[in-house]
Amino acid sequence: MKRKKPSDIKAKPPAGPETERQTANDDREITALSLQRGKLSPAMDGYFAKCQEKLGFVPNVLSAYAFDNAKLEAFVGMYNDLMLAPSGLSKLEREMIAVAVSSVNRCYYCLVAHGAAVRALSGDPALGELMVMNYRAARLSKRQRAMLDFAAKLTAEPWAIEEGDREALRKAGFAERDIWDIAAVAGFYNMSNRVASATDMRPNSVYHGQAR
Amino acid sequence: MKRKKPSDIKAKPPAGPETERQTANDDREITALSLQRGKLSPAMDGYFAKCQEKLGFVPNVLSAYAFDNAKLEAFVGMYNDLMLAPSGLSKLEREMIAVAVSSVNRCYYCLVAHGAAVRALSGDPALGELMVMNYRAARLSKRQRAMLDFAAKLTAEPWAIEEGDREALRKAGFAERDIWDIAAVAGFYNMSNRVASATDMRPNSVYHGQAR
Amino acid sequence: MKRKKPSDIKAKPPAGPETERQTANDDREITALSLQRGKLSPAMDGYFAKCQEKLGFVPNVLSAYAFDNAKLEAFVGMYNDLMLAPSGLSKLEREMIAVAVSSVNRCYYCLVAHGAAVRALSGDPALGELMVMNYRAARLSKRQRAMLDFAAKLTAEPWAIEEGDREALRKAGFAERDIWDIAAVAGFYNMSNRVASATDMRPNSVYHGQAR
Amino acid sequence: MKRKKPSDIKAKPPAGPETERQTANDDREITALSLQRGKLSPAMDGYFAKCQEKLGFVPNVLSAYAFDNAKLEAFVGMYNDLMLAPSGLSKLEREMIAVAVSSVNRCYYCLVAHGAAVRALSGDPALGELMVMNYRAARLSKRQRAMLDFAAKLTAEPWAIEEGDREALRKAGFAERDIWDIAAVAGFYNMSNRVASATDMRPNSVYHGQAR
Amino acid sequence: MKRKKPSDIKAKPPAGPETERQTANDDREITALSLQRGKLSPAMDGYFAKCQEKLGFVPNVLSAYAFDNAKLEAFVGMYNDLMLAPSGLSKLEREMIAVAVSSVNRCYYCLVAHGAAVRALSGDPALGELMVMNYRAARLSKRQRAMLDFAAKLTAEPWAIEEGDREALRKAGFAERDIWDIAAVAGFYNMSNRVASATDMRPNSVYHGQAR
Amino acid sequence: MKRKKPSDIKAKPPAGPETERQTANDDREITALSLQRGKLSPAMDGYFAKCQEKLGFVPNVLSAYAFDNAKLEAFVGMYNDLMLAPSGLSKLEREMIAVAVSSVNRCYYCLVAHGAAVRALSGDPALGELMVMNYRAARLSKRQRAMLDFAAKLTAEPWAIEEGDREALRKAGFAERDIWDIAAVAGFYNMSNRVASATDMRPNSVYHGQAR
Repeated sequence: MKRKKPSDIKAKPPAGPETERQTANDDREITALSLQRGKLSPAMDGYFAKCQEKLGFVPNVLSAYAFDNAKLEAFVGMYNDLMLAPSGLSKLEREMIAVAVSSVNRCYYCLVAHGAAVRALSGDPALGELMVMNYRAARLSKRQRAMLDFAAKLTAEPWAIEEGDREALRKAGFAERDIWDIAAVAGFYNMSNRVASATDMRPNSVYHGQAR
Repeated sequence: MKRKKPSDIKAKPPAGPETERQTANDDREITALSLQRGKLSPAMDGYFAKCQEKLGFVPNVLSAYAFDNAKLEAFVGMYNDLMLAPSGLSKLEREMIAVAVSSVNRCYYCLVAHGAAVRALSGDPALGELMVMNYRAARLSKRQRAMLDFAAKLTAEPWAIEEGDREALRKAGFAERDIWDIAAVAGFYNMSNRVASATDMRPNSVYHGQAR
Repeated sequence: MKRKKPSDIKAKPPAGPETERQTANDDREITALSLQRGKLSPAMDGYFAKCQEKLGFVPNVLSAYAFDNAKLEAFVGMYNDLMLAPSGLSKLEREMIAVAVSSVNRCYYCLVAHGAAVRALSGDPALGELMVMNYRAARLSKRQRAMLDFAAKLTAEPWAIEEGDREALRKAGFAERDIWDIAAVAGFYNMSNRVASATDMRPNSVYHGQAR
Repeated sequence: MKRKKPSDIKAKPPAGPETERQTANDDREITALSLQRGKLSPAMDGYFAKCQEKLGFVPNVLSAYAFDNAKLEAFVGMYNDLMLAPSGLSKLEREMIAVAVSSVNRCYYCLVAHGAAVRALSGDPALGELMVMNYRAARLSKRQRAMLDFAAKLTAEPWAIEEGDREALRKAGFAERDIWDIAAVAGFYNMSNRVASATDMRPNSVYHGQAR
Repeated sequence: MKRKKPSDIKAKPPAGPETERQTANDDREITALSLQRGKLSPAMDGYFAKCQEKLGFVPNVLSAYAFDNAKLEAFVGMYNDLMLAPSGLSKLEREMIAVAVSSVNRCYYCLVAHGAAVRALSGDPALGELMVMNYRAARLSKRQRAMLDFAAKLTAEPWAIEEGDREALRKAGFAERDIWDIAAVAGFYNMSNRVASATDMRPNSVYHGQAR
Repeated sequence: MKRKKPSDIKAKPPAGPETERQTANDDREITALSLQRGKLSPAMDGYFAKCQEKLGFVPNVLSAYAFDNAKLEAFVGMYNDLMLAPSGLSKLEREMIAVAVSSVNRCYYCLVAHGAAVRALSGDPALGELMVMNYRAARLSKRQRAMLDFAAKLTAEPWAIEEGDREALRKAGFAERDIWDIAAVAGFYNMSNRVASATDMRPNSVYHGQAR
């Protein structure tokens, strides 16, 4: 039996017609739908300017919604309340739910964008990968494991959630409002995953290298 | 073989300890979470008053969100844009998507509330039942069938939506904005179904008899 | 953000070419198969007459089987034994199983016809809706919940039923014969659901409004 | 790398406490339910006697139903009509449906008993194995493949059967009555599989060696 | 209701154009791929000769791999280590895992070939059938049941295996190496099932009648 | 509605007891099984040394197998043949199959290790992410899309692969040997995924940052 030497595992980037980068157009053609940018309200114009200033880019999901200012405002309003308002869940925990839900739904946009957020908020690149790949393989506290088990079940078989599932959260230390927040964040990404998948939404290419 | 007479099929409501009506508490204990009503903004107070005046009741989903005015406003903002703003989809079509999605997710709250809306908006009680039970058994136009096929696939396996699915909508006559709206409405009920199921949200009892 | 007024939720039945009622032909074209009515035995003729007299109509499933008297007699024989003969299960409980099973299988005919029976037998319209939509959301006795859990599992993954499942029924108070009856009724609707779905069987339109 | 010699593959039956045969009690303890044999009608007594005379044994499913003569008669009536009455489907084809359906449902009783019937009726032992294991691997005529595709889909996702599925049967040469019969036989085994699985029904041990 | 006599159940093999045996070509056309036999090494030539001498035939899986000696050697090397090397699992237990895994995957080749091995090694034909049809219906020791539950879960939802699953094996008496071996054998048949299904690999016809 | 400023999205790594890195022990405690390293053959000792020299580390999967030299040799033999031997599939294509299969199975070890290989071999970090998250969202040639569709179907429902699936590969330009290789690589990772998941195998921490 001839064995290959491990050096063979080393890689050289190939050249040629099939090597155009996967992100070649992702920052220009944000969805598969032909929708013209609408007129934004001053509030939304300001919001985009702030994104540019603070993040260095406008997240593509916002640009995707920008064909209709009312829809954009409704989305931003709900997003900001859920992900940034005070809550018994830390911002990292909310992002962990976002990614674990998006993993069940295999949503490319949300896994890239929120996977980067988990890496950044935790300072632990592998935690982001674990949320993307299989949260059950992560080394989590009981609290966070219970939180993600609830979010994953709610995503995969919402009809089967019952009092026992809520009780498991209470036993893990979550208050009534926290349970609402877990449900609401998990629900929100079940929505966003589907809007993104329905429109082939592409994540900003900059996310891929963030916080690695 | 002794045969039962068809008259035996006739029913008499049973009496006794197990006959408390399923809706006994549904208008009082709206969710399984203990959350105190928060202070509502004048806008939300006014919105509740309008509901009471026009509908005769406040939909329980609004009461459920009323523990936190910011969350309530975000929800109402998105709901009203999606379900009531101008769109290439009629209000009935948006409600049909709501119920077909909720059927995949088996969400009791949304099936009751939006099933009633389909009955009311269509004037056809059986159409509401078909959306609840199995939209594939309904006698639909090709347009509406394509719309529901997309919404149901997006709900059950969002990762598998591809250009061919969008093309099928275009061939059925939907414009680019309409495709967004189908995705956004389907996405919204994938969120609402999960918030409702996570909290055991109960529909107002009045819905059951509406537009039968 | 412009908000829609709640009055917008109010509905007017639409008019026009797509508004033919879903039940327009359901009482005439009972299945998608072209089968001529066969010659019925005097017993079956009498049975149909009794149905007409007592119920005011012949259930469409009987008319569907009437292309072959032997098949009709076999179906009626088994139906009557299972649903009407003495049993440790009440008639309502047997109908609850029928609907919960039909919900897993999303069978339009059986959900409509037996959903009406649950409403009629219980005197509780919402109980019928709960069986149709998601029995897990119903407020049931432990006995009835155990009964429906067994029936639903037997429907969805019959290969996984084991002694533990039977023990759960015994602990909930069911006798050996009762367990047989739960299995037999659940089994029967797994058959009927498939005959109905295979032939696009349409429920009598009268069911929709019964016992609401 | 030390290689084992192929002779190592040869087997010797092990001895010891765990080697009791799987069929040790299958002809005595037919189900997991404690049900006393009921009094049979002369017709049923005669039927059992005929089974003994012609087959050499009474199929365990009949003994299982014998706790209640009315249930036994109803079952025998339907079974005999479906499997033995004149039909556009041959008896072998009806048994092929029985086994293919039972394979989806992984029903031990029906796979053993009807697998033996397929072997016997076809004279081709491998055909029985293929129906048990995966009918898609069998070398079938287009007609029989279409028949089994319909039966398998009707078993696994009955809600998804539509006119296109019936058309596929018509194109494969099936008449309207034949479509009914395919549906009725597939439906019947979806019932029987569940009664057998719910009660842990054991097949007569004699089936295992038949027609090999 | 006319009843068929039980004698009608008796079978006569049909004659005619559709009766070619399912195994007609299985020993000549081993896969659906056109691959020429490659030049075998002396070791592999010897291995094939030993198979012929001891078993009376060369298992088709080996002939299928014989288009490339290196692939054949790698397969044989791994197969022999897993199935024949010393282990805390008996050879029968390893074959039971092989068949239970192949049952989840519905792999015709492996169910036929390894079903025969279970029959031969156990001396109990019904044990082979139970592994093929539904291992949950078998009368197993707690040890063997735990082993197969782990293998079946690992096959159907590998992402859900966690420490609790390994603990269940330890409680059933398995050592750390045994757990590896269960995983490795289950893994190996998840590979082989897919190579066989991908290529429509046909089992040697002789297996069907072995050890019945 | 108070809006959060985008700057709030910025992250600071948290401190405290729950912030131990996910990879803290991954290079020391490679699996959840307690298995002592066995004595390796000179060939395997050399292979490990080469890995260390060329890659800078020994892949944890090799260390995991090192408790038994024979198993290690069998694994290395098959791995090297499949992934490194001449084939109509490029090394990158084989790694793409590895990751797409591992994505269906949600295998943390294989997604990390082979995701890194796809990034390295392609020079396109996003291609690795797409294989991990949802290969359907990637911009692939028809050839590579057909290849991954086959591998994913073979992974998720191997029983449903038929001649039509092989024909789709031939139409995409694959030769008979290539089809074997696609099947064999997909099969191999269905094995490796399960060995890794069964043992909670941890990937070398160095993979996370490679080729980003």
